[in-house]
Amino acid sequence: MSEAEDFLLVARRAKEAAAGLAPLPRAAKDAALHRIADALTSAAPEIVDANKGDVERARESGTSEYMIDRLSLSESRIAAIADAVRKVAALPDPVGETVRGNVLPNGLELRQVRVPLGVVGIIYEGRPNVTVDAAALCLKSGNAALLRGSSSAHGSNTKLVAVMQDALTETEVPSDAVQLVPGTSRESVKHLMRARGLVDVLIPRGGASLINSVVEESTVPVIETGVGNCAVYVDAAADVDMAVDILLNAKTQRPSVCNAAETFLVHADVADAFVPRALAALRDAGVTVHGDDRIRSYGDDVVAATEDDWHAEYLSLDIAARVVDSLDDAVTHIRAYGSGHTEAIVTASQPAAKRFVALVDSAAVMVNASTRFTDGEEFGFGAEIGISTQKLHARGPMGLPELTSTKYVAVGDGHVRG
Amino acid sequence: MSEAEDFLLVARRAKEAAAGLAPLPRAAKDAALHRIADALTSAAPEIVDANKGDVERARESGTSEYMIDRLSLSESRIAAIADAVRKVAALPDPVGETVRGNVLPNGLELRQVRVPLGVVGIIYEGRPNVTVDAAALCLKSGNAALLRGSSSAHGSNTKLVAVMQDALTETEVPSDAVQLVPGTSRESVKHLMRARGLVDVLIPRGGASLINSVVEESTVPVIETGVGNCAVYVDAAADVDMAVDILLNAKTQRPSVCNAAETFLVHADVADAFVPRALAALRDAGVTVHGDDRIRSYGDDVVAATEDDWHAEYLSLDIAARVVDSLDDAVTHIRAYGSGHTEAIVTASQPAAKRFVALVDSAAVMVNASTRFTDGEEFGFGAEIGISTQKLHARGPMGLPELTSTKYVAVGDGHVRG
Repeated sequence: MSEAEDFLLVARRAKEAAAGLAPLPRAAKDAALHRIADALTSAAPEIVDANKGDVERARESGTSEYMIDRLSLSESRIAAIADAVRKVAALPDPVGETVRGNVLPNGLELRQVRVPLGVVGIIYEGRPNVTVDAAALCLKSGNAALLRGSSSAHGSNTKLVAVMQDALTETEVPSDAVQLVPGTSRESVKHLMRARGLVDVLIPRGGASLINSVVEESTVPVIETGVGNCAVYVDAAADVDMAVDILLNAKTQRPSVCNAAETFLVHADVADAFVPRALAALRDAGVTVHGDDRIRSYGDDVVAATEDDWHAEYLSLDIAARVVDSLDDAVTHIRAYGSGHTEAIVTASQPAAKRFVALVDSAAVMVNASTRFTDGEEFGFGAEIGISTQKLHARGPMGLPELTSTKYVAVGDGHVRG
Repeated sequence: MSEAEDFLLVARRAKEAAAGLAPLPRAAKDAALHRIADALTSAAPEIVDANKGDVERARESGTSEYMIDRLSLSESRIAAIADAVRKVAALPDPVGETVRGNVLPNGLELRQVRVPLGVVGIIYEGRPNVTVDAAALCLKSGNAALLRGSSSAHGSNTKLVAVMQDALTETEVPSDAVQLVPGTSRESVKHLMRARGLVDVLIPRGGASLINSVVEESTVPVIETGVGNCAVYVDAAADVDMAVDILLNAKTQRPSVCNAAETFLVHADVADAFVPRALAALRDAGVTVHGDDRIRSYGDDVVAATEDDWHAEYLSLDIAARVVDSLDDAVTHIRAYGSGHTEAIVTASQPAAKRFVALVDSAAVMVNASTRFTDGEEFGFGAEIGISTQKLHARGPMGLPELTSTKYVAVGDGHVRG
C-alpha cells in the first residue's frame, strides 16, 4: 500500500474516532487522560529506550547539543509529561458551553454551543513532548489528533503514540483519536495539507519556513502560530528605569521563544536618557545590538542594522534598535516589519498608551509590561496549543476553547417560516 | 499598468484605509453610513442608468428572466438598499467590546477586545445590492471592503462603488475603505486570492464551484459560505401533522436558498403514516421527489434516486428521500452526504432530539422547526454577510461580530517575568 493510501486510512479512522469522541461527557475524557498519564509513567523505561535510538541517530548526523537536549527524554521528563496530561484533565471542558442563547420573538429557543472542531492536524518540530501535549489538549476538547512530528523524533513519537493508543483501548475514547501521520517524508506532510473534508484544521508549530509552506499549500484551513518579531517601544514619557528592566527582560529572560523582543524603538526625546543605559545593560547580558545611525552614535559596539535586521526573528542574544521621532513612527515601523505577535509600550502617559493600543495591530499589546507575558500559562488558560498570529478564529495564545467550534441549536414546536 | 499592478495598488490602498478606519469611534462610522445611504438615494437615477447597460448586455447574451430580475435595479430597489444601510448604522458596534478580562495573579490587567479583521475580500455573483450590503457591514465593523462582483453587474457595481466613495470623501472614513477589484477577468479573482498579507480574509458567496475554487487556490484565509444540502429527519416519535408542515415549509417556502431542505429521511416505523401524506403535499406543491425503493413503494410518481441525488443542492422544486431504520442511520446519511449547513429533526421524543443534536455535525440543528430559520435576520443578528459552513472562526449565520478578530491588551506597572 502506498503512503498516500496509508494516510487516507489513518485520516478516515481519525474522522470516525472524532465522531465517537465528540459527544462523550467530560468524565469519560478525563478518565482517558488519566489512563494515558498512568500508561506513560509505567512505560517510561521503554519510551526512554525508543528515544535513545533517535538521540543516537541525531548525534551521528552532527546535531547540536541544544537540539539533542530538546529531543532527549528521561524518566523524570516523562513523569513531567504525564503530570501535564493530568493537569489538562483538571481543566474545565470547553465542549457544551452555551456561548449565547435567547428566545426569539417567534418563540424559537436558540442556543450557540461549543462543539469540537473534529480532526485537528498538528505539524511540529523537535521535542517529542509536543506529541503528548497536543494529543491531550485535542482529546480534552473532544478532537481527534493527527500528529506529524519531526522525523528526527520519529522513534520516540511512534512509541509515545503506541502507549497512548494502548491506554485508550481500556476507555470510552476511541484509540484512533490519537494517531501519527504515516511516513516521515516531505510527501507525508502534503497528504495532511490536502486532506480537506477529513481534517478540519491544521496547526503548524515551528519556524517561519514550515509555516509559510503550510499556508501556501494547504487546502485544509490553517491556524498560523509562533513567528514573533516583537518590539518594545520606549515612549517620550517612559520611566527610564522601568524601560530598561522591561527591555532586558523581554530580550534576555528566554531569548529562544517567540514572545522575546527582537527590536526596540525609542522616542528621540528620551534617547539621551535611555539609550546609553539600555546599551550598557544589554552589553552586560551579552546582547549584540543592531542599530540605526542614531543608536550607533551612543555606542561603538552597536552593529549597523540592515533591512534584514528589522525583519529578523533572531531567537538569540541579538536585538535591532532604532530611534523614532514619534509614537506614530514607532507604529509605522511595527506595521512594516512586525509579525503581529506582541508589542510593548513603556510610558507614563495615558493618551500615549491608549493611542499605541489602538493603532498597533498585533495579537497582544503590553503597556508597561514585558512582551514575555504573551503565553497561555501566564494568561491563566492552564494550557496552550500555540500562539496564533493570524486574525481568523483565534489570535494570541490558544487554550482549549480555541480548539472548538460552535453549533446553533434551535428548539421549536412546529415552527415554520411565514 | 497591468491588471496585477492595478490590483496591488488597490489592495495597498485598502490596507492603508483599514488602518485609518480601525480606530474610528462608532459615531464616525454611523455618520459615514448615513452619508452613503443619502448619496445612494440622490444618485438613484444615475445608478438605474448604469444598471440598464448591464441588463441590456445580459438580455443580449440570453440570460434567463430570473437572473435578469436579480440583476435589475429600480429607484425603489435602491431606496430599499439605502434603508438597509441605515439599518446597519443602527446596529451595535462590535469593535471595542471586551470579550473577556480579568486581573492576573501578578496584577497584570488583561482584556481581550474585539478589533476589525482589516481588509475583507468578498467574491459574489449576480445581485448588485450585495455590493452595498457587504460594504456597509464591513465599514460598520471597521473593515475595508475589497469587492469582486459578477462581471455581468460590473457597470452597476462600478457606479455603486463610485457613489459610496464619493460620499465617504465628506466623512472621517477613508474613501479607499470601499473598493472594487480592478478588472472582470478570471485572473482578477486570482490576484485577490493570492494577496496574503494585504487581504485578511476572503468570503466567497455563491455556488459550490466558485467556493471550491477559492478554497483550492487561496492563500488568504477563507470563510466558506452558502452551500446547503439540508435534511429533514422525521423520527419514529414524530407528530405526523407537524412533520408534513415542517417538510413542506423547508422545501417550498423559498426553494432557491441555501437553508431550503434538499432531502428528507423518515424512520421506518412512521413511514406508513408519514410518507403518503408527505408525497401528496409535495405533489400539490409541484415538488418532484427522488426516492429510494422504500419511498417509491408509496408513490408511482417518485423518481428513482441516484447517488447524485443524495449529494444534490437542487435549489429547485426537487427533493431526495429515503426511509431509514433508525435515528443513527439518519445521522450516518447526513454525515455522508450533508454539507454541514442545517438539519432538522421532527420528534416528540426528548432523548431522540438530544441524540440527534449531539451527533449531527452541522452549523445549525433544528428541533421541530423548519431548516429555513438558519438566517441572520431570523436569529436576530440584524444583518448577515453570509452563512458559514466551515468550523473555523465562524459557523452558521455571520453577523457583525463574525467580521471581527480580537486583540489582547495587558496593562502593568513595570511587570517583568521571573
